[in-house]
Amino acid sequence: MGKMGSEMLIYVLLLMAGVLASGQSSQVKIWPMPASVSYGHTHLYLTNDFGFSSNYGSEILKDAFDRMLALIKLDHIIDANFSAFNSSSLLQGLHIVISSPNGQLQYGVDESYKLIVPSPKNPAYAHLEAKTVYGALQGLQTFSQLCYFSVTSRVLQIDMSPWTIIDQPRFSYRGLLIDTSRHYLPVPVIKKVIDSMSYAKLNVMHWHIVDTQSFPLDIPSYPKLWDGAYSPSERYTVADAADIVRHDMLSHGIICFLHSYSRFLLLSGNCSYSSLKGTGYPSLWPSKDCQQPLDVSSEFTFKVIDGILSDFSKIFNFKFVHLGGDEVNTSCWTTTPRIRNCTYYFLATGFRLKKRGMNESQAYQYFVLRAQNIALSHGYEIINWEETFNDFGNKLSRKTVVHNWLGGGVAQRVVASGLRCIVSNQDKWYLDHLDTPWQEFYANEPLTNVTNLKQQKLVIGGEVCMWGEAVDGSDIEQTIWPRAAAAAERLWTPFDKLAKNPRDVTGRLAHFRCLLNQRGVAAAPVAGLGRAAPEGPGSCYRQ
Amino acid sequence: MGKMGSEMLIYVLLLMAGVLASGQSSQVKIWPMPASVSYGHTHLYLTNDFGFSSNYGSEILKDAFDRMLALIKLDHIIDANFSAFNSSSLLQGLHIVISSPNGQLQYGVDESYKLIVPSPKNPAYAHLEAKTVYGALQGLQTFSQLCYFSVTSRVLQIDMSPWTIIDQPRFSYRGLLIDTSRHYLPVPVIKKVIDSMSYAKLNVMHWHIVDTQSFPLDIPSYPKLWDGAYSPSERYTVADAADIVRHDMLSHGIICFLHSYSRFLLLSGNCSYSSLKGTGYPSLWPSKDCQQPLDVSSEFTFKVIDGILSDFSKIFNFKFVHLGGDEVNTSCWTTTPRIRNCTYYFLATGFRLKKRGMNESQAYQYFVLRAQNIALSHGYEIINWEETFNDFGNKLSRKTVVHNWLGGGVAQRVVASGLRCIVSNQDKWYLDHLDTPWQEFYANEPLTNVTNLKQQKLVIGGEVCMWGEAVDGSDIEQTIWPRAAAAAERLWTPFDKLAKNPRDVTGRLAHFRCLLNQRGVAAAPVAGLGRAAPEGPGSCYRQ
Repeated sequence: MGKMGSEMLIYVLLLMAGVLASGQSSQVKIWPMPASVSYGHTHLYLTNDFGFSSNYGSEILKDAFDRMLALIKLDHIIDANFSAFNSSSLLQGLHIVISSPNGQLQYGVDESYKLIVPSPKNPAYAHLEAKTVYGALQGLQTFSQLCYFSVTSRVLQIDMSPWTIIDQPRFSYRGLLIDTSRHYLPVPVIKKVIDSMSYAKLNVMHWHIVDTQSFPLDIPSYPKLWDGAYSPSERYTVADAADIVRHDMLSHGIICFLHSYSRFLLLSGNCSYSSLKGTGYPSLWPSKDCQQPLDVSSEFTFKVIDGILSDFSKIFNFKFVHLGGDEVNTSCWTTTPRIRNCTYYFLATGFRLKKRGMNESQAYQYFVLRAQNIALSHGYEIINWEETFNDFGNKLSRKTVVHNWLGGGVAQRVVASGLRCIVSNQDKWYLDHLDTPWQEFYANEPLTNVTNLKQQKLVIGGEVCMWGEAVDGSDIEQTIWPRAAAAAERLWTPFDKLAKNPRDVTGRLAHFRCLLNQRGVAAAPVAGLGRAAPEGPGSCYRQ
Repeated sequence: MGKMGSEMLIYVLLLMAGVLASGQSSQVKIWPMPASVSYGHTHLYLTNDFGFSSNYGSEILKDAFDRMLALIKLDHIIDANFSAFNSSSLLQGLHIVISSPNGQLQYGVDESYKLIVPSPKNPAYAHLEAKTVYGALQGLQTFSQLCYFSVTSRVLQIDMSPWTIIDQPRFSYRGLLIDTSRHYLPVPVIKKVIDSMSYAKLNVMHWHIVDTQSFPLDIPSYPKLWDGAYSPSERYTVADAADIVRHDMLSHGIICFLHSYSRFLLLSGNCSYSSLKGTGYPSLWPSKDCQQPLDVSSEFTFKVIDGILSDFSKIFNFKFVHLGGDEVNTSCWTTTPRIRNCTYYFLATGFRLKKRGMNESQAYQYFVLRAQNIALSHGYEIINWEETFNDFGNKLSRKTVVHNWLGGGVAQRVVASGLRCIVSNQDKWYLDHLDTPWQEFYANEPLTNVTNLKQQKLVIGGEVCMWGEAVDGSDIEQTIWPRAAAAAERLWTPFDKLAKNPRDVTGRLAHFRCLLNQRGVAAAPVAGLGRAAPEGPGSCYRQ
């Protein structure tokens, strides 16, 4: 064969390999796509007493395994005659090896794992290796997606074995924001959302717990605050909140942190005076007529902040707190005489704003920085909305994580200044924007225009936001899913394994959406915009 | 006091009583409203080891009680200090007395109960009496609505005791239709719908399992039929179906029966030839080009019907089967040469249609009546859609229950002819009609124009229909609820206790809707039409 001929042969072989590879990879139905996957062509069947063993005795692991088995079964009855199966095709169990068993769940914990499902042999066991138990939980999630109940064999089955999956997330912060201020979400609803997050390997729940409209959380240091709840029953006790955190952590390795501030808020977003209706703490607001923001001239304000953060730290073990700082309307400060004219005395510093001639934007900066200091003194990591960076970024604590939401192009400036960034640009990653289709969630790249490798590391991840104005327990799941799953793959899967054209993953996302439905999660059809109903009769996989 | 004066006094007293009664009754939050309710003004608190005792050892009762306790707790943590409570206000447990413990669950079983919650005393026990265990289950449902987790006392609480509730349903058939042919509903989704039915005391699940679009059920006698499922995984094994029936019966005392026929169909509604794609049983259809209905000239058709009904009877213990018979398009029979011209030989009867000169409407009647006979021979009670009554009502078996759906005014004609009737008039009780608000569901009276008492008894009840063209696992719950609850009260509560103006029960329905949400049922807001999203931030109770 001449040179031309061998080149042609190589070309044809490469072309065939590409065709085969793309054809083959379209058979892999895992979501999000793991970093590295290889598979075969044989079937395995899980025995009726399929169990696990581990070098690490852990309640977290045992609970996760039991839940995984229940998930795979999906309430089907397994009534196969096992003696009719070839014994080498029976998968006996799962061996789990954890190399650093005593790791605590903290932001940035190692979530890598390696999952091996063998070819038929006697006996056949699957193997899962991970550095930490949280990596093993991610491995169990993937394993749960390999298994399915076969209506023909009447047994739990794995196709395309042997499998070798080596996996770790691209970003360490893969979040979902839920909002319990605009609508109270009952505890079982929140726990169900947490369960669904874990199926897509999302690992941070950002709980926007209070805001202007309602204050549903018990703050023991200031017990009148939750009189701002919509009604007595639409509240979370401290024990409720701790239970939710426990459900996050222990069941799913999900970090849960509190957002108590928004709109430059403090006590849970803009606790307007009117929402407290004469109860609560009237002195926190500039005046009865002026609802936001809180009174920056009052030392009591900062005492309350301090008390709240102290109470939070007992519930939320994770040292993130979101201090808000967006959409500040400081006109109250200049319209309220007391604040505009008076001299401010601060017990700690004796600082006088009037003497320094502060205007309202300077007061806003002062407020944010002081709140940051209080949080830092309690050992928190701090997150602020991007306005604080846009307005006085060079004054922010160097520990600040800037939360981008206004639009694109911000992350690159934040990391260029040396601060860390979380991406939630509203044009692509706001779930309450029903007209943003899943393809745009999928395509939203956090590292757009961030080419410097050191700066890329400062983008710690991203978050999709389920603002609660028009969602409550009746429609939250179908508003979150499947679009949050599209973002979840953008945040987990290596960049070069992501689809360049989201259309290419439509079938796999539909498969994941149907899996969510089978697991009792009300994920909306893939076709259409957010929270669409199915257009007509048809298979789940085609809608 | 003169005559005028005492009359005036009586009048004033009556007026006051009316005012008091209406004011007081607005405090009762039970849904559906029981037949007879009295209550007081004191609080009771359930002890941490609140349990039950009964004269009747029953797994059904124990499971129901455990589930009820979990429902009341709603995942809240009970961390009250019980020693701080007055011991006479602690409710120690529930005594349950069943007078006819060995009753089987059949249509028409006695569901009455009497529930007594005492005033504070030492010791304090609640009492539940019922004829059957199924009455006791209804009593537990009501009891579960009296209890709630109080965020202030941090304990399960009952207000307004003592309570005396004496209750029984107005109609014995209170149904919900679900449709798994237009969209496959995963088993966990169906079980969750069943759970939610029981909260509103609905007691019949009409499972429209197959139709033109898909055939998801395993029929062992004819195993190729479920090749007509949308996909291999969108199927129910026999064990799945039996498990769902068991969940209905044992968990909730709900009767589940199968609808296999629609559009004069037989094998699951119109199994079009195309939906079987060359598998299945082609000989069942008149021709490849002619999709419905099935081939009335073929004896094989009737053998298959017989086989299916026989298989069904092993899964579904309840002797109702719905034989369809609506919207028949018989043009296939006259356009398909084989049927139009041939002589029909029937193994059983040697009957020749051609000789009798049957036209297509006569063939339709022949088909329905023969299917009825087959069902009756298997011991079934039979239900047919109203077209069969409208077209040849005097030929129908006297055992037929006519299912009214086309519109109002039908029930009165059915019962005047001596047949029983189920009401589902589509203008009011079709849940897929999103523009029908809950007020119209509430106001739809099954006995409209049925004044004769004997004939009133022939209206056995009604059914709301959740046709599946535009619902699947993502949106079925909010399409069903809360509108099905409005109909559930119409079917349970005595006529004279129903609100004349549905607006009067808005607050109580909103309370029930919020209870459903708290229990993890995605019931839509009361405001707005079917499956509406909340319009903006606010309390659940005001939306």
